[in-house]
Amino acid sequence: MRGCSKVLLKPRTSEEVSHILRYCHEKNLAVNTQGGNTGLVGGSVPVFDEIILSTALMNQVVSFQDISGILVCQAGCILEELSRYVEERDFIMPLDLGAKGSCHIGGNLATNAGGLRFLRYGSLRGTVLGLEVVLADGTILNCLTSLRKDNTGYDLKQLFIGSEGTLGVITAVSILCPPKPRAVNVAFLGCPGFAEVLQTFSTCKRMLGEILSAYEFMDAECMQLVRQHLQLTSPVQESPFYVLVETSGSKVEHDAEKLSSFLEHALGSGLVTDGTLATDQGKTKMLWALRERITEALARDGYVYKYDVSLPVDRLYDLVIDLRARLGSQAKHVVGYGHLGDGNLHLNVTAEAFSPSLLGDLEPYVYEWTAGQRGSVSAEHGVGFKKQSVLGYSKPPEALQLMQQLKTLLDPQGILNPYKTLPTRA
Amino acid sequence: MRGCSKVLLKPRTSEEVSHILRYCHEKNLAVNTQGGNTGLVGGSVPVFDEIILSTALMNQVVSFQDISGILVCQAGCILEELSRYVEERDFIMPLDLGAKGSCHIGGNLATNAGGLRFLRYGSLRGTVLGLEVVLADGTILNCLTSLRKDNTGYDLKQLFIGSEGTLGVITAVSILCPPKPRAVNVAFLGCPGFAEVLQTFSTCKRMLGEILSAYEFMDAECMQLVRQHLQLTSPVQESPFYVLVETSGSKVEHDAEKLSSFLEHALGSGLVTDGTLATDQGKTKMLWALRERITEALARDGYVYKYDVSLPVDRLYDLVIDLRARLGSQAKHVVGYGHLGDGNLHLNVTAEAFSPSLLGDLEPYVYEWTAGQRGSVSAEHGVGFKKQSVLGYSKPPEALQLMQQLKTLLDPQGILNPYKTLPTRA
Repeated sequence: MRGCSKVLLKPRTSEEVSHILRYCHEKNLAVNTQGGNTGLVGGSVPVFDEIILSTALMNQVVSFQDISGILVCQAGCILEELSRYVEERDFIMPLDLGAKGSCHIGGNLATNAGGLRFLRYGSLRGTVLGLEVVLADGTILNCLTSLRKDNTGYDLKQLFIGSEGTLGVITAVSILCPPKPRAVNVAFLGCPGFAEVLQTFSTCKRMLGEILSAYEFMDAECMQLVRQHLQLTSPVQESPFYVLVETSGSKVEHDAEKLSSFLEHALGSGLVTDGTLATDQGKTKMLWALRERITEALARDGYVYKYDVSLPVDRLYDLVIDLRARLGSQAKHVVGYGHLGDGNLHLNVTAEAFSPSLLGDLEPYVYEWTAGQRGSVSAEHGVGFKKQSVLGYSKPPEALQLMQQLKTLLDPQGILNPYKTLPTRA
Repeated sequence: MRGCSKVLLKPRTSEEVSHILRYCHEKNLAVNTQGGNTGLVGGSVPVFDEIILSTALMNQVVSFQDISGILVCQAGCILEELSRYVEERDFIMPLDLGAKGSCHIGGNLATNAGGLRFLRYGSLRGTVLGLEVVLADGTILNCLTSLRKDNTGYDLKQLFIGSEGTLGVITAVSILCPPKPRAVNVAFLGCPGFAEVLQTFSTCKRMLGEILSAYEFMDAECMQLVRQHLQLTSPVQESPFYVLVETSGSKVEHDAEKLSSFLEHALGSGLVTDGTLATDQGKTKMLWALRERITEALARDGYVYKYDVSLPVDRLYDLVIDLRARLGSQAKHVVGYGHLGDGNLHLNVTAEAFSPSLLGDLEPYVYEWTAGQRGSVSAEHGVGFKKQSVLGYSKPPEALQLMQQLKTLLDPQGILNPYKTLPTRA
């Protein structure tokens, strides 16, 4: 997407990025950095006629250390290509996303992407070891070290992770890759209630411990939609909730044994009413599809209102129940699913068509409800252009003020990705 | 330690901290925040007559969530007490340090402490979910959320982690605690050379995978010193290098099986010449003591010059070999040990007494050598008062300038922990 931009630049090196920004800084020209352009909040799309600075040609791997698993590469490398590169060397990338086929690693960092491996390998704030960033005035800030520990002064790279291109342009990355797991197993379970979904999660953490790599949930309406629109069938008995548990470990037999005894316990104690295991790739993919294709089923159901919130896990589903009662027959479906292990709910509402009155019933209600639980109104999809006005629901005024001060310090003329991330100043 | 301070304040709440800082900001009075006062670089010790702001009475646990393992507490809680608190609930703290009996969690965060669990549970930048901080002018910045994912704007808490009290005073913390492992095993190994220490590390990562929780090494001179000064004996044959491998997992038999087959492979392939396993607590402690008591043995050997550097793992030990040749008979011992899994070398040199000429041979040589490898001149012990002048060896001028700008933005009068962390301005 290009908005109404007239200029698209594709530098190959950080020096070229530096030249571009120095020029734009002098001439007061707005710049929109663009990676794979896969974000959901419009952070990579120009609002007016910003110059598009694409990282597409900055796609070189710089180095890979076999002993430590540290990858250094340019910002425009595509996530899936990096995955392939490190997997050939018996490592994996610490993140995995639906958009991996086109998203750039630089964009993943600029948006602090979450995704499917977050539960196991944690935040990019821990796995990213170094960054090279070009500042608004063209200064190259080289913090591209490959050290797991470095306490020499403030950790400047953290400023740029998740700042959506508004504080600087990420040009290169140093990232720690975990060893490739020898075995990946998946269990798909039916749970009689949300309380059981939570208890099953606690049980998983105890019994599967270090091999637990995903804990995803979906409600009965999600299953109904993937059945109706995609002809997928549930591999377990009909239940109010479904859970997908994934394990990744270094020894097949050990993992299978742990997963079986967990499942036996969960079934025996009534936490789970039915369950199935997948150890081969075909069935594993089939089970993951039930969870991953919900978005597609929703799109076929009608107009979709989408929310991506973080909440304390024990209150996570109350928002869905509450909204169903509030919206009544206005909505076709109100569904909840997501990365339960990370406290991340994807809340979606479908209707025959877009309706301002339904929107009025959803917003600011959803944001206020989330704020009431001290949740996040944007868990993993960033702020971009679409959510800047709702930042105040999750951040106090003192925090918003400091964010503005940082923006002013690092980009005094406001040329970097303007109209994004921070609320528009009065 | 109090320097020549005349005032020591012990607030109980963040509001009290706010009142203190507002007053000091108005009157232009310098403030030195002090936690457990266990740091090695003088960050918590007043240089002149700074007002000491102790977090000692801010020692309350605010909440603990059983499902997610999220602990919220005040900054003055002692690490060991928090460990006990969460262990009673079947979780552990994500960090562990020698100083745990007196260090405060707020100080751990202010110094971005590393320690013994870093390899497994990662950086505090990933495990800390929220902070409450009082800014220099008394503003309370409440970012104390308990969410694993939150992409609403810039992640301000990262500014304060590792800033050693120079940008704000951390008053409360929200931190993610991992489940308590059911089984902890230790292997102690002898390796014929440093190349084998590295290969053994790669093998460990493959064969132990997700249960590997520590990979520490020490050289033959370290073993000689703990034998000579502490009468500890090596549990394995004399070797040029020794390695301590720790595993933490959820199933005793699985972990023991993995560790045994690793050891069998390591011995069979010649990577390791001798090895012993500990599964009971007594022997585990005994093996850890060989590594943990090196500092004590060094102190008994004479005057100790201490360096804490990060280097690419494959060059880690070259610095020790190089220094031995350079110093010759000037030094009693030049030893290397540390968290190899994190690329963190503790380099220590002992001599009969302090000698300016020996110091002249060590510095800036050690820093220049480290800079030549793009290493860190302070891996996990921070900068404080002692290392600010050497920051430039690990950070480019552009980074130092931005750090100064951040300091000026957040503490325009420079009242927070002055003379620390950043190089003194000309």
